[in-house]
Amino acid sequence: MNDEFMNLAFECAEKAFELNEVPIGAVIVKNNMIISYAYNQKESNHSSLYHAELIAIHEASKKMNNWRLDDCDLYVTLDPCPMCASAIKQSRIHNVYSALSNSDLTNDSIIRKIFESDSTNPGVLFKTNLCMERSKKLLNTFFKKQRNK
Amino acid sequence: MNDEFMNLAFECAEKAFELNEVPIGAVIVKNNMIISYAYNQKESNHSSLYHAELIAIHEASKKMNNWRLDDCDLYVTLDPCPMCASAIKQSRIHNVYSALSNSDLTNDSIIRKIFESDSTNPGVLFKTNLCMERSKKLLNTFFKKQRNK
Repeated sequence: MNDEFMNLAFECAEKAFELNEVPIGAVIVKNNMIISYAYNQKESNHSSLYHAELIAIHEASKKMNNWRLDDCDLYVTLDPCPMCASAIKQSRIHNVYSALSNSDLTNDSIIRKIFESDSTNPGVLFKTNLCMERSKKLLNTFFKKQRNK
Repeated sequence: MNDEFMNLAFECAEKAFELNEVPIGAVIVKNNMIISYAYNQKESNHSSLYHAELIAIHEASKKMNNWRLDDCDLYVTLDPCPMCASAIKQSRIHNVYSALSNSDLTNDSIIRKIFESDSTNPGVLFKTNLCMERSKKLLNTFFKKQRNK
C-alpha cells in the first residue's frame, strides 16, 4: 500500500462529508500514477450508481479509452459493496487496498466470492483494514452528525 | 410477467446485436408505465459499467429524480451479473423478470444472496427462465457470428 494514494482517498471522503454524503473516497492508480479519484455522490446525483468506486472506474475507463483497467490498483476508504466489487473485478483492476472492513459479514463473504478468480478473469487481490481508525472516525462522526440533525 | 415489456427488452437486445455488443436488453416499468429501457453498450463506451441494467437504472433515477426506484420492476433478457444485481437491490427495484438463467452457478448463487432481504432493505423478487429459447437463440447466434469473424 502507498500512503499517498490512501491519503488522497481520504481527502475525497472528506469532500463527501462536507457535502452531506456518506464519506467514502476512492482512487485508481497505474504504475504509481493517479488515473482518477472520486467521492460518493449518491444523494446529490439521486442515483445508487454514484458510489466513489464506480465514478472512479468510469473516469479511468474514459481516460484510458478502454474498459480493461489492466495493471490498475484501487484505494478505497471502506470495503466496496457487491455492485462496486463486481465492477472492480470486471474492469480487471488488480489490487484493492481498503481502509476498513465492512462489518456486515454477508457483504464480506459476497465480495470475497466476487473477487475470486474464474476461468475467464484473473482474481482481485484484496487487502482490508489498512487504515481502520481514520475511516471509523470519519464514518462515526458523519453518522452522529446526521442523527443530531 | 408482462409480455409487452419483455418484448421491448428483446428489441433492445437486438439493437445491441446490430451494434456488435453482447445482445442484452433491460426495461424498467412502474405501474405498467415504461420508465426507461437500454441495451448493453460496454464495447462502444469502453466501460464495464455500460450494462443494459445499469444504463436503465441510471435513466430511471434521472427521470424520477430519486435513487429510490420504489414500486419499479425490471425486465431483462439474461440474468444480471453481481454488479447489476447489487445496483437493482440498492435501487429498491421490487421484481426482476429475467428471460434466461445464467448457466454460471457461482454467479447464480451470488445474485440470489444479493437479492435476499436484509435488515435495511426489502428483498428483490426474482423470476428467471421466462423466455429461455428466444434469449438462448439470440446469444448463440451472436457468439457464433463473433467466432466466425
